[in-house]
Amino acid sequence: MGWMTELGQQLRVDAVRAAAAAGSGHPTSSMSAADLMSVLLTRYLRYDVARPDDPHNDHLLFSKGHASPLLYAMLRATGAIDFDELMTYRRLGSRLEGHPTPRLPWVEVATGSLGQGLPVGVGLGLTGARLDRLPYHVWVLCGDSELAEGSIWEAFEQAGTAGLDNLTAVVDVNRLGQRGPTRHEWDLDAYSRRISAFGWRVIEVDGHDIADVDRAFAQALSTTGRPQAILARTRKGRGVAAVEDQEGFHGKPVPDAEEAVRELGGVRDLTVQVTQPDRSGTPNRFPDGNLDLPTYQVGEKAATRTAFGKALVALGGARGDVVALDGEVADSTRTEYFAAKYPERFFECYIAEQQMISAATAMQARGWVPYAATFAAFMTRAFDFIRMAAVSRANLRLCGSHVGVAIGQDGPSQMGLEDLAMLRAVHGSTVLCPCDANQTAQLTVAMADRKGISYMRTNRGDTPVIYAPGERFPIGGSRVLRESTADKVAIVAAGVTVHQALAAADRLATEGIQARVIDAYSVKPIDADTLRAAARDTGRIVTVEDHWPEGGLGDAVLDVWADGTEPPPRVHKLAVRSMPASAKPDEQLRAAGIDADAIVAAARAMIGG
Amino acid sequence: MGWMTELGQQLRVDAVRAAAAAGSGHPTSSMSAADLMSVLLTRYLRYDVARPDDPHNDHLLFSKGHASPLLYAMLRATGAIDFDELMTYRRLGSRLEGHPTPRLPWVEVATGSLGQGLPVGVGLGLTGARLDRLPYHVWVLCGDSELAEGSIWEAFEQAGTAGLDNLTAVVDVNRLGQRGPTRHEWDLDAYSRRISAFGWRVIEVDGHDIADVDRAFAQALSTTGRPQAILARTRKGRGVAAVEDQEGFHGKPVPDAEEAVRELGGVRDLTVQVTQPDRSGTPNRFPDGNLDLPTYQVGEKAATRTAFGKALVALGGARGDVVALDGEVADSTRTEYFAAKYPERFFECYIAEQQMISAATAMQARGWVPYAATFAAFMTRAFDFIRMAAVSRANLRLCGSHVGVAIGQDGPSQMGLEDLAMLRAVHGSTVLCPCDANQTAQLTVAMADRKGISYMRTNRGDTPVIYAPGERFPIGGSRVLRESTADKVAIVAAGVTVHQALAAADRLATEGIQARVIDAYSVKPIDADTLRAAARDTGRIVTVEDHWPEGGLGDAVLDVWADGTEPPPRVHKLAVRSMPASAKPDEQLRAAGIDADAIVAAARAMIGG
Repeated sequence: MGWMTELGQQLRVDAVRAAAAAGSGHPTSSMSAADLMSVLLTRYLRYDVARPDDPHNDHLLFSKGHASPLLYAMLRATGAIDFDELMTYRRLGSRLEGHPTPRLPWVEVATGSLGQGLPVGVGLGLTGARLDRLPYHVWVLCGDSELAEGSIWEAFEQAGTAGLDNLTAVVDVNRLGQRGPTRHEWDLDAYSRRISAFGWRVIEVDGHDIADVDRAFAQALSTTGRPQAILARTRKGRGVAAVEDQEGFHGKPVPDAEEAVRELGGVRDLTVQVTQPDRSGTPNRFPDGNLDLPTYQVGEKAATRTAFGKALVALGGARGDVVALDGEVADSTRTEYFAAKYPERFFECYIAEQQMISAATAMQARGWVPYAATFAAFMTRAFDFIRMAAVSRANLRLCGSHVGVAIGQDGPSQMGLEDLAMLRAVHGSTVLCPCDANQTAQLTVAMADRKGISYMRTNRGDTPVIYAPGERFPIGGSRVLRESTADKVAIVAAGVTVHQALAAADRLATEGIQARVIDAYSVKPIDADTLRAAARDTGRIVTVEDHWPEGGLGDAVLDVWADGTEPPPRVHKLAVRSMPASAKPDEQLRAAGIDADAIVAAARAMIGG
Repeated sequence: MGWMTELGQQLRVDAVRAAAAAGSGHPTSSMSAADLMSVLLTRYLRYDVARPDDPHNDHLLFSKGHASPLLYAMLRATGAIDFDELMTYRRLGSRLEGHPTPRLPWVEVATGSLGQGLPVGVGLGLTGARLDRLPYHVWVLCGDSELAEGSIWEAFEQAGTAGLDNLTAVVDVNRLGQRGPTRHEWDLDAYSRRISAFGWRVIEVDGHDIADVDRAFAQALSTTGRPQAILARTRKGRGVAAVEDQEGFHGKPVPDAEEAVRELGGVRDLTVQVTQPDRSGTPNRFPDGNLDLPTYQVGEKAATRTAFGKALVALGGARGDVVALDGEVADSTRTEYFAAKYPERFFECYIAEQQMISAATAMQARGWVPYAATFAAFMTRAFDFIRMAAVSRANLRLCGSHVGVAIGQDGPSQMGLEDLAMLRAVHGSTVLCPCDANQTAQLTVAMADRKGISYMRTNRGDTPVIYAPGERFPIGGSRVLRESTADKVAIVAAGVTVHQALAAADRLATEGIQARVIDAYSVKPIDADTLRAAARDTGRIVTVEDHWPEGGLGDAVLDVWADGTEPPPRVHKLAVRSMPASAKPDEQLRAAGIDADAIVAAARAMIGG
């Protein structure tokens, strides 16, 4: 016990020193949890520090990511990093960022937006139990403030009803949030009532009593059938009187670091030999097979959402690493086909989009290839989680169905009209907008090997099949559907508006106006070469999208010319500019000014003008 | 009792008929809750149907917005709408949209994205208790599926700890979600344990036993000190054997509407005289005063977040209708100044951004002028709520602090780098990005009278004051900071990049290159006239923003030319293109390629090229 007390003090000292060197950071939030992490590291965590990719390793997530000095102090105590590197905390070029990111090989996912580590931990628990089928344990250090986030309760619910006994949340109840006292301060019973109501075993401890903490971890590990929450009453800034349990010291170095180190008993250089992982069992993998991708004949009608669902089933047959998640709308997104065929690889997240994205992030961290789907409109619910997945360097495949006014009667609450803007503004993302079933199928498969966050938007209603089976649609490409040397205008469309563009071009042709039609199914990256050629050939581009005017296809097209090298062509952006209501799909396209008539009018105006 | 049974059947019949006429909609989700709403409408709701704006009215929210046919059937029963209008459900031009919106005067906020009605209801409860100080009651009809949303638990927590006894959630536990059974089906105790743990009184009832339901409402209304949840066990599609408690009938008209109406006992034309509101008391309003806006001298340094906070206090002194909300970062966003001065008008939402936006939406529905603030990065947490606030035609003022790489060491999890894209893609929104303290103060005040969703992004670090006190900054305007007849390029910046642009222009001037500098503080609407003039005069525009390249200032500038009337100028968009890490603010701007050096290089390249 004495040794763990000493290690706890070492972790505090190193957190204080790291923040002092950086001139910023969160030492006080680290100090409250130092004893908890000392015990975990010494006696309970099973992890090969030399092999962070070992599939048998336990998982440790800092949901309270701002306590990064503590994490880095732990890494130093294990020998993973040395003292000199610890002192690079928060500096340009250092792997030790203000909040943990996977630039460090011991960090699986980025944290720092509160309320995300626990949902990801739940995802890792599901992955261990249902996918990897390995006995690793998932440990999540949570703050007390972040228990106010709804996403935390989505996580408690998902884990509790799944009975994930491989998951332990360690809640550092240090009573003080950023601005002042938390809602429940040290009322551990308030948290206990809530968390146990969700089916978790709750263990309350004094977070600075090493023996008490040790007993709590042992109890947690011996629990079967339920996830466990260790509620630890702690003191922020523990061990340094100037800051301990004081307001006004959140996210700041302690005022006198040297004095603090002395008060903590001085510098120590203890080294922890972390217990090796339980290497029993090999990681489960489902069988691979041949890709038997459904095809559609030109002239058929099919909804792109249905083509996505069928392609996902085919992909699941070809690749045993593909898994699917849905937010209780699998009958709409069509992941229900995958759920029926591969129930062991399907995860029903109910209407909890934040938990859904977190679980997908966890699964990809373990090498699985997750596809997560819901209505495009409801992807907005998880924007912070998608954003952070990009910081995590995660490879996620997302599908948003029911896009745009074209859904018809359900009205604006159900219409994805900002999904392109949202997903384009995710670092390193890929944004796809297919218009027919064969194209959708091909792109669904292409997403599997795509790095980063890839997103496909699909339509509710049927659209005609315009591409023959076997045609290829590389990401970053486009398809020129009408082209002549006499083209006076280029119409750039994607998804449902491609069919409106074709109708418009046909009508313009009867008036003697040749229009090029470009299917920009890859909105990001967009096919700059084809667009530049169209601009050179015609000088006029009409873009048409079932989306608000901001951040979507039109902006993506204009962005081609945003490197300053040549003047852009004239562009007329057609998009949804007024708040839709309920109406039939064709009435909606007309009312929004994105139907064939609107395209014809825009093209005529540009050519006449 | 018999009369309420009959009214319940009428509501079912009318829901069935409305959906049959529309060919779509959610009659089965309406039928489960019909008895609950019959009792509420007949005996407990206090509402002047002829005066939906009466401040004394109770509030009724359909958090399960898809049960709109039930709501519209209730409106018909009260005489608010007639049968002919009911039959326009989901048609082009009808006020009876697929999901309720405020196009109907009896609907305060739009619902249809699940998990939002209850948080707004909590906001109305807070408004009644703390702002209006009126004895109205808030009734929220929830579905059981939506209890999976984290936002619902943010709401339970906020209301439970606030002890809002003016709030009743009526949960229609009909066991079936969209795709199939809910997680807890008819396990009312599972819900009861969870909800009561959050400090609510829970009352379990048979939702089709009129006497039982009547007793539950009476118990709820007599409860003091706690919000109440009526958990009603119901049957989806109740009363029509072909669909009752059957899977596969979510969101579809009943197969044989005529037969269903017969089975329900035929058409009825009962009219309910809804109880008049309790008109005791007058709505509280806090006193107005003079606007004593802080000013800053040119050359001073101040953070725009601080200027926002101080302006908000001044505004609070001038206008008694201004209120503020924060997500437990008031010391960072600087709403803490308002909280200190006007504690009765400040709402600490803790780290629950979804509940924060919902509460703001509720307050504006009652005529208050809410400002809600958190880190810009964490506004992403509430995107679905902001999106729906636009559907609600809400007037919200949002402030996102700590934008961009300029925050420095904390790293990407804390950097608002997608906020412009997100907020621009909100229908009817206003997006402001001030660069100095006087400008921030003026714009903070201007937001108070702005319709729709207005958003201001503020900086963490100090920036120099460049505008004199008293200068005016109209929304939709811009400021030209450098201008000559010899301008060869225009630099368009906003926020922190304005100062980089000025430095770049100074440096270019020493090389004999005159550069116009435009402060585009109003990103949406953007000052098209000034940008067109700059394009005419210089032919070259460099945009520079502390934001991802997608959807931000650069796209807003290009959008000026997206009406096809004239060719855009050459534009070079400088933005953050690689994933930042931790570093000092100036190192970050340099690494991102948005500092003065990068601007100089871009300008030179355009002019040389």
